[in-house]
Amino acid sequence: MDAVGTNEIGAGGQAALAMMRAKLVDLWQETLTNSRFLSHVTEGKIDHALYALYLHETYHYTRHNARNQALVGVVSAWDDPNYQQFCFRHAAEETGHEHMALHDIRSLDRDVDVEIAPPLPETSVLIAYLYWISSQGNPYQRLGYSYWAESCYEFIMPAALRIKSDLHLTDVQMTFILAHSEIDVDHARKVGEMLVSRCRKKEDWRAAEEVMETSLRLTAAMMDAVLQEYDKLRAGRSKRAVFVTRYRC
Amino acid sequence: MDAVGTNEIGAGGQAALAMMRAKLVDLWQETLTNSRFLSHVTEGKIDHALYALYLHETYHYTRHNARNQALVGVVSAWDDPNYQQFCFRHAAEETGHEHMALHDIRSLDRDVDVEIAPPLPETSVLIAYLYWISSQGNPYQRLGYSYWAESCYEFIMPAALRIKSDLHLTDVQMTFILAHSEIDVDHARKVGEMLVSRCRKKEDWRAAEEVMETSLRLTAAMMDAVLQEYDKLRAGRSKRAVFVTRYRC
Amino acid sequence: MDAVGTNEIGAGGQAALAMMRAKLVDLWQETLTNSRFLSHVTEGKIDHALYALYLHETYHYTRHNARNQALVGVVSAWDDPNYQQFCFRHAAEETGHEHMALHDIRSLDRDVDVEIAPPLPETSVLIAYLYWISSQGNPYQRLGYSYWAESCYEFIMPAALRIKSDLHLTDVQMTFILAHSEIDVDHARKVGEMLVSRCRKKEDWRAAEEVMETSLRLTAAMMDAVLQEYDKLRAGRSKRAVFVTRYRC
Amino acid sequence: MDAVGTNEIGAGGQAALAMMRAKLVDLWQETLTNSRFLSHVTEGKIDHALYALYLHETYHYTRHNARNQALVGVVSAWDDPNYQQFCFRHAAEETGHEHMALHDIRSLDRDVDVEIAPPLPETSVLIAYLYWISSQGNPYQRLGYSYWAESCYEFIMPAALRIKSDLHLTDVQMTFILAHSEIDVDHARKVGEMLVSRCRKKEDWRAAEEVMETSLRLTAAMMDAVLQEYDKLRAGRSKRAVFVTRYRC
Repeated sequence: MDAVGTNEIGAGGQAALAMMRAKLVDLWQETLTNSRFLSHVTEGKIDHALYALYLHETYHYTRHNARNQALVGVVSAWDDPNYQQFCFRHAAEETGHEHMALHDIRSLDRDVDVEIAPPLPETSVLIAYLYWISSQGNPYQRLGYSYWAESCYEFIMPAALRIKSDLHLTDVQMTFILAHSEIDVDHARKVGEMLVSRCRKKEDWRAAEEVMETSLRLTAAMMDAVLQEYDKLRAGRSKRAVFVTRYRC
Repeated sequence: MDAVGTNEIGAGGQAALAMMRAKLVDLWQETLTNSRFLSHVTEGKIDHALYALYLHETYHYTRHNARNQALVGVVSAWDDPNYQQFCFRHAAEETGHEHMALHDIRSLDRDVDVEIAPPLPETSVLIAYLYWISSQGNPYQRLGYSYWAESCYEFIMPAALRIKSDLHLTDVQMTFILAHSEIDVDHARKVGEMLVSRCRKKEDWRAAEEVMETSLRLTAAMMDAVLQEYDKLRAGRSKRAVFVTRYRC
Repeated sequence: MDAVGTNEIGAGGQAALAMMRAKLVDLWQETLTNSRFLSHVTEGKIDHALYALYLHETYHYTRHNARNQALVGVVSAWDDPNYQQFCFRHAAEETGHEHMALHDIRSLDRDVDVEIAPPLPETSVLIAYLYWISSQGNPYQRLGYSYWAESCYEFIMPAALRIKSDLHLTDVQMTFILAHSEIDVDHARKVGEMLVSRCRKKEDWRAAEEVMETSLRLTAAMMDAVLQEYDKLRAGRSKRAVFVTRYRC
Repeated sequence: MDAVGTNEIGAGGQAALAMMRAKLVDLWQETLTNSRFLSHVTEGKIDHALYALYLHETYHYTRHNARNQALVGVVSAWDDPNYQQFCFRHAAEETGHEHMALHDIRSLDRDVDVEIAPPLPETSVLIAYLYWISSQGNPYQRLGYSYWAESCYEFIMPAALRIKSDLHLTDVQMTFILAHSEIDVDHARKVGEMLVSRCRKKEDWRAAEEVMETSLRLTAAMMDAVLQEYDKLRAGRSKRAVFVTRYRC
């Protein structure tokens, strides 16, 4: 929370961004260590059902991302047309990405009928939080979410490749992660520039950093909930998204 | 309201659009005939104060246009990513256009200190209506507003040129109208295409047509309110936006 | 707009309220003189179809009143729990009143099947405006709407009684107007007290007064639109709310 | 999640409510066992600073409760005026309760200057979730939050009395918990009745149950975050709400 001392435009902003980046690296280290879901993956324990369930929840929160991004431009940024335009453009670029997640589920096995179930509570909590921080509070704080989300591929790529290899998937079956990792390189750069140019006060950086940390934690909690739900499905104790149990193990 | 009989995709959609266009031409004819403000202009009675007041109200509703356009993509279009993306892209293109209106006011006379006052009630009513039809009801109905707003230049250009000539303005002092008229040619085409591809039911066309007609009437009412307020300002019976009285007549 | 000079708490507030009241009396005088709909009534030209159509539009805006009243308490009044509570209590008292309007339509003739149609554009504009002024701007401005709406019965009672007599209605067929006129005496008093205690600045009174005037004008415009739609229905040029034509003349 | 089989009105509704109650008892058992904060209290380790910090976060989420409760009546319940009225009345009763939390902090020591800091991230997540489930999804699901919140006193009273005794507090210093425990007896009964009368489908009960469980978990997470923040404050590693460190231990 105390990454930033002063923030003179230029050197100060770059220094603040560097401290935010350092904080993010720490957070990922912690997440990669503590995530039951990611450990499961790196221990080679993932199967098609678990991967499908993960994509199912990904579908749910992703279909809100363009919307809550645009909402920032609708309700704030009254005196900052450049930022407002950034919000709308970024929203336009993120639109429909949930269909990549859906495509990837379907591509696992065309014989399995994908029936979208309601999101897990932990996924709803993530979605709720992203709308909340997009519609009130510091107008620049949602950049903290974009900052990690658009640059996450360097951290999760080892897990993604492990999934690819263990589940014998082709690139075409992993469009959500692979396509995103390319699209988002440019986004990540723009988000960094926006943070440096817009966060002029310590409170701006703090707000962005809090959103970065909280939304990453909620995403990690969602992934662990996927694993828990998978165990319940395997044990026949859940009737939610049962279609995933029809994938071959 | 009854412009459309059936709407088979293709020929039907084009026919419906043609009937909407015919309705629009009628509405403009009616507006150009009945508008006290536009008559005032074509009779050569406009001066810098009245033009500044018109731009002042234009500034107010314009600063909401990108926002209510984006709102359509935030709250509706759940199963239509192409339309959602259209909303966000269109919003990005409309962002900040209120500053053109502001620029044009300022360019009238650099010695006059422009002090933005609250909008006239009629302007607030227009703004309120645009948010309302963007946030509830038929998801495609806001296209009815875009349809006339993006193609209005052919109808109001004579009035615009009369203002230019009577007030001895250069193109640089009329960025809002002139720049818009070029930007919007492409928009108008896209809006027409979107109407044809999205309005599949009679009710869709009816909703879009109702919004077209109502928002055009509210805009005309706003222009007449500008004239009324101008008279009050001249008579010293208003304290709103008094800066406009400092322009030379 | 310039009813108020200074507003010292106590005497000043009462004086401001008295000026607002004087303004309201003027507005009603103007409305009673200019309203085509009300003239129609006082000239004895109303019939069951026209009255049903009026109640139909009344049904539409009334079902939003409790909602937009509560919205004031949701989005503003952060440091004013008394006002917030007033908003929620008032909303609770207004809830469901649209069913009185519906009841009154049905009671005209049980053999006519009432089929609710979409609201007229003028009714939508009124609804849109009430949400707008309830969700942004001066937190006390919606009191300007309540101020006239809760005290309107003294002004419209002659027209209501004329309707009652000309259409041979009983009290039970006029619950919306008659029940309201009693319920609202207490509301009107509370609204006046709230205005005096909450409007501390000239701008507060101005905002409330603008909302009073604008919402009354939009309501009058709605009534005139009812008459216009009635003429279209009679001429067979409208397919909206055709059920009203089935009432005996 | 599978508490309910069928739901015939009457016996079925009462049975469903009984199963929801049983689930709640289990959840509380789990919460009382696992909550680090509540264990801290029952082990006699609470002090004025920790209690003040707990009240500080309570202040934050409580000031949104009447608002998100009213929001349910604003955005849903279109065909259910009784439920809408329940939402507005309940909101009116909950209005301003955050001031009880504030009063209780202040009463701990009049010499300490209470400076409200931003909420902890975990508190923001709870607030965000309550707005989310109040503004979309099943219209009755927020009853699941009220159901546990209004009846929590039987479960937390032992902890509350332990705080009272260990910190030598009078009833007047514990208005939030004690006053609430009385006010809410009637609320809890009404909430139960509303659940039985409104939840007609299995999905209604499931939605209410999910909100009950999730909001209780998020509240427990908030309490544990209070303890974590307290440790950081004691260690000088937080600059948030430092006023609490000025209370005598």
